[in-house]
Amino acid sequence: MTYCVAASVDEGLVFLSDSRTNAGVDQISTFRKMTFFEQPGERVIVLMGAGNLSITQSVIGALQERLEHANSVLKQPTMADVAHMVGEAVRDVYRRDAAALSLHNIAFNVEFIVGGEIRGEVPRLFLVYAAGNFIESTVETRYFQLGEAKYGKPIIDRVIGPETSLGAAAKCLLVSMDSTLRSNLTVGMPLDLAIVRRGEGRVTLHQTVVSEDGYWQRIRDGWGEALRNAFHALPDVEIPPPTGG
Amino acid sequence: MTYCVAASVDEGLVFLSDSRTNAGVDQISTFRKMTFFEQPGERVIVLMGAGNLSITQSVIGALQERLEHANSVLKQPTMADVAHMVGEAVRDVYRRDAAALSLHNIAFNVEFIVGGEIRGEVPRLFLVYAAGNFIESTVETRYFQLGEAKYGKPIIDRVIGPETSLGAAAKCLLVSMDSTLRSNLTVGMPLDLAIVRRGEGRVTLHQTVVSEDGYWQRIRDGWGEALRNAFHALPDVEIPPPTGG
Repeated sequence: MTYCVAASVDEGLVFLSDSRTNAGVDQISTFRKMTFFEQPGERVIVLMGAGNLSITQSVIGALQERLEHANSVLKQPTMADVAHMVGEAVRDVYRRDAAALSLHNIAFNVEFIVGGEIRGEVPRLFLVYAAGNFIESTVETRYFQLGEAKYGKPIIDRVIGPETSLGAAAKCLLVSMDSTLRSNLTVGMPLDLAIVRRGEGRVTLHQTVVSEDGYWQRIRDGWGEALRNAFHALPDVEIPPPTGG
Repeated sequence: MTYCVAASVDEGLVFLSDSRTNAGVDQISTFRKMTFFEQPGERVIVLMGAGNLSITQSVIGALQERLEHANSVLKQPTMADVAHMVGEAVRDVYRRDAAALSLHNIAFNVEFIVGGEIRGEVPRLFLVYAAGNFIESTVETRYFQLGEAKYGKPIIDRVIGPETSLGAAAKCLLVSMDSTLRSNLTVGMPLDLAIVRRGEGRVTLHQTVVSEDGYWQRIRDGWGEALRNAFHALPDVEIPPPTGG
């Protein structure tokens, strides 16, 4: 399983992914799930994939091979064109692999979050499905999640708005990841955190977060303690005293 | 969808269920999901069911019909025997309905949380599966959830321990329910809250919680505010200032 999440705020985009790939709890590996395509100052594209690892790797491989060609992701005029191109790459892998996978009862299971900024556009964020179709984030829905999404959803729903700063949005995604890590063994460290600040056309910040990272420990321990304090500050349910019977 | 949750602490048991049954977002009904069997002072059994409503109702109906017979849930010597009896009732409905349901591609989808206290035993908590088999809560896993479980799981993992008071455990399940209600439309008010205090052999407290309930509003609003305050008190991710380029 996997957990990837990205959010769009007025200041830009934030991306966070775990690095756990597994085919059963006794067979766990670590693979990076975040890929960058960048011409600093001109354009930056961030890709996060979830699903069958052979499919996500094939899609990213195909996009990388095409970098020298006319249909490179680095030559698309808009981020919507980039999302479309990722969708087409997914469809190519489907045509090549889906029938053989289905003989082994393996579903063609893949999804991508695609975000970034191309000079002349504001930063944009997309979700590309296994069928190659895609949706874009909106004012009402400013974030996308892949994989093990539910544990970490409530905090994003409560905190992220258009005016949330990039630093606070990044903190929110890390808290969301922490809740997911605690509840699901198959999501794992290290994490990849990336920030694209509006107007820069590049990866403003990319950081690999390991368990020993001081800030991560402060968030992890501080959030747990803050939650417990907040919980204890609320009044308990009042229960009638024992009747002595 | 549904969300039911129950926790076992040293002081006793807490049960909480929503009351939303649906077959699509445009077809939502309200049904109670909590059933009591009680001989005050002697024994108390609390049942919460999730899954196909015709199946949960058939199981509870069968248990109610048998109350006058030798194999009544009120005549079982232990809570494990009660859980076994619920499992047998599930198997009876399976034998009667599963083949016909499968002709309509409807899965035999049902699960029950069964908890309570029989004089001479400590309070005990079980989860009964669709196959009629069951598991009991342990020192390490003190709670069971049915239905839309993930949104509300992190707070339970962080807060509930053996020494948690019944009032605090009930508050925790309500906070867990609040997170679920916010993230999933198909879980809905009103709620049923029940508490079985150890040694009493009866329903110590049963309360139907409606949206207008003052305590519920205090938890709902207070928790949201406390979460946001806790979040803002943690340091944001530091992002390098713009280069001015």
